[in-house]
Amino acid sequence: MALNDRFLKACRREQVDCTPVWFMRQAGRYMAEYRAIRAKHTLLEICAQPELAAEVTLQPVHALGVDAAILFADILLPLMPMGIHLEFAKGEGPVIHNPIGSRADVETLRVIDPCEELAHVLEAVKLVRRELDGKTPLIGFAGAPFTLASYIIEGGSSRNFIKTKQLMYRDSQVWHALMSKLAQVIATYLVAQIEAGAQAVQLFDSWVGVLSPTDYREFVLPHSQVILQTVKASGVPAIHFGTDTATLLPLLTEAGGDVIGLDWRIDLDRGWETIGFDRAVQGNLDPVALFAPRDELERRVRRILDQAAKRPGHIFNLGHGILQETPVENVKAVVEMVHEFSQR
Amino acid sequence: MALNDRFLKACRREQVDCTPVWFMRQAGRYMAEYRAIRAKHTLLEICAQPELAAEVTLQPVHALGVDAAILFADILLPLMPMGIHLEFAKGEGPVIHNPIGSRADVETLRVIDPCEELAHVLEAVKLVRRELDGKTPLIGFAGAPFTLASYIIEGGSSRNFIKTKQLMYRDSQVWHALMSKLAQVIATYLVAQIEAGAQAVQLFDSWVGVLSPTDYREFVLPHSQVILQTVKASGVPAIHFGTDTATLLPLLTEAGGDVIGLDWRIDLDRGWETIGFDRAVQGNLDPVALFAPRDELERRVRRILDQAAKRPGHIFNLGHGILQETPVENVKAVVEMVHEFSQR
Repeated sequence: MALNDRFLKACRREQVDCTPVWFMRQAGRYMAEYRAIRAKHTLLEICAQPELAAEVTLQPVHALGVDAAILFADILLPLMPMGIHLEFAKGEGPVIHNPIGSRADVETLRVIDPCEELAHVLEAVKLVRRELDGKTPLIGFAGAPFTLASYIIEGGSSRNFIKTKQLMYRDSQVWHALMSKLAQVIATYLVAQIEAGAQAVQLFDSWVGVLSPTDYREFVLPHSQVILQTVKASGVPAIHFGTDTATLLPLLTEAGGDVIGLDWRIDLDRGWETIGFDRAVQGNLDPVALFAPRDELERRVRRILDQAAKRPGHIFNLGHGILQETPVENVKAVVEMVHEFSQR
Repeated sequence: MALNDRFLKACRREQVDCTPVWFMRQAGRYMAEYRAIRAKHTLLEICAQPELAAEVTLQPVHALGVDAAILFADILLPLMPMGIHLEFAKGEGPVIHNPIGSRADVETLRVIDPCEELAHVLEAVKLVRRELDGKTPLIGFAGAPFTLASYIIEGGSSRNFIKTKQLMYRDSQVWHALMSKLAQVIATYLVAQIEAGAQAVQLFDSWVGVLSPTDYREFVLPHSQVILQTVKASGVPAIHFGTDTATLLPLLTEAGGDVIGLDWRIDLDRGWETIGFDRAVQGNLDPVALFAPRDELERRVRRILDQAAKRPGHIFNLGHGILQETPVENVKAVVEMVHEFSQR
């Protein structure tokens, strides 16, 4: 297996032999290999043991032939050493037992040194790099401050983000203090992943699309920008991702990132135009398209590739993570379609 | 109390003395008066008894001084006589015991005559009109075919709309047959409400923002268009509402509606420009802004009014329904702010 650098080339908007493809949540419950490991270990156990994390990271690389590996981890991991009591309750998603709501709460959060306190994650990065042996690039990642803040303020997942926005609106100083602490930790965490061997990083601001553009600019942009500027100095490409971001794209772009993620709610060509052609784009198949019959799925893959065909700099991906019930053979088929249809 | 026609004038983009305001879900659990009724009656009981529905409809008109009443009902009501077994399970939202998935299922759905089978709703319209005595206009409403289809295919609320999109992608003929039946019923239902006295109607396509523009055009637009053209012929204004629709606005506008609803994810002025100034707009305060301190809430109300100030045709509303935990005094304050700040 020769070096596959089409993902990294596309991040830099260089010509590639064909469009690179990987999937958010490409290691996960839709794969039998992953379910076999999860039958024996909890999510946090897998994240805590570098050998297991590395094994799970590599599963989709071997099974699907994707053009990038992404470290298996959870965006909430850095919160635990910061002082957040986190549990993944069965079928419920993350539960945080000491949600943050006041200045005093924010002050208790520790600004950790990821090299010390997330050493197991960095060890997994090193293991995966060794296993991949230069054949497939490895993406590191972290949650963005807004998305992390929403979990620790709400105490878990949320539908309307009432407490999160309340903190913003009621006490913007406390909000900014929290965001600033999170940004500091995330920036050093991503740099540590890069130093351990991550060849690109993705900043996941998955839930930021619940904000208006005005709120994004005031309450989020400065903090995500700190992180993306720090990563820029490291020289590896950064992907800046969110969902529901059609009206936020100019601001996400201003915050930074060499590659901007797009979801399926915006046509890829229109989204790219909004972002500007001096950035690469990643996306944007609806994850539910993977449930479609093969001919319909093919039409949808072709449409995205056609919209992206005018210039280099497109990384094929979904608009959000792979859903648990997804047929694995369709995921595999998309990898083949993307490579075949985009041959240059 | 004199005739308040600023809502209807704004629908027609005529000059008004000040901006009209009403709230989606303005009758609901955030109000003590409503909770008192709900302590004695289920949601379906209130909907089934015209006197109760009328009483609940009028509660926010009296308590808040809004510029329009909206009939108290549920978007799922027309589905029951069509043959859907619907239950509102405690704390769970709607549960449908016979979800639709096949051509045979679609064929079992009855195209009802709303004058017969939703007579209780029409009776409530008449009662409310009588009580309002011309002082405040009454809005009728219905769920749009996509949003209704999503409930009856998923069997209730949904996060990812997998079954709904699967039906679209796998069997577009069955999809269109279902949408067409729903559109036929909804069109006659809205006309029946108008004939019973509704002075405007709103079509709620609350969940349509999960679709890409391409899917909206193919699978939804023709059906919503049938309804909105039928309503247009009746001569009363129609409001076309969805959430998460930033990229769908040109298509929602093409489907029809004298007034297009906007959520907070798009700046009102930019949204209006996208829609075109030959339509009125409704929106677009984030429902969570109602949890903000008064000065912050005021800033947010002013910002929306400023963005809308260039021309007539703005109806102030939220970007989605009032949330259950909302402080009622803030809702009342917004009515006063809108009226005061927009004085002409």
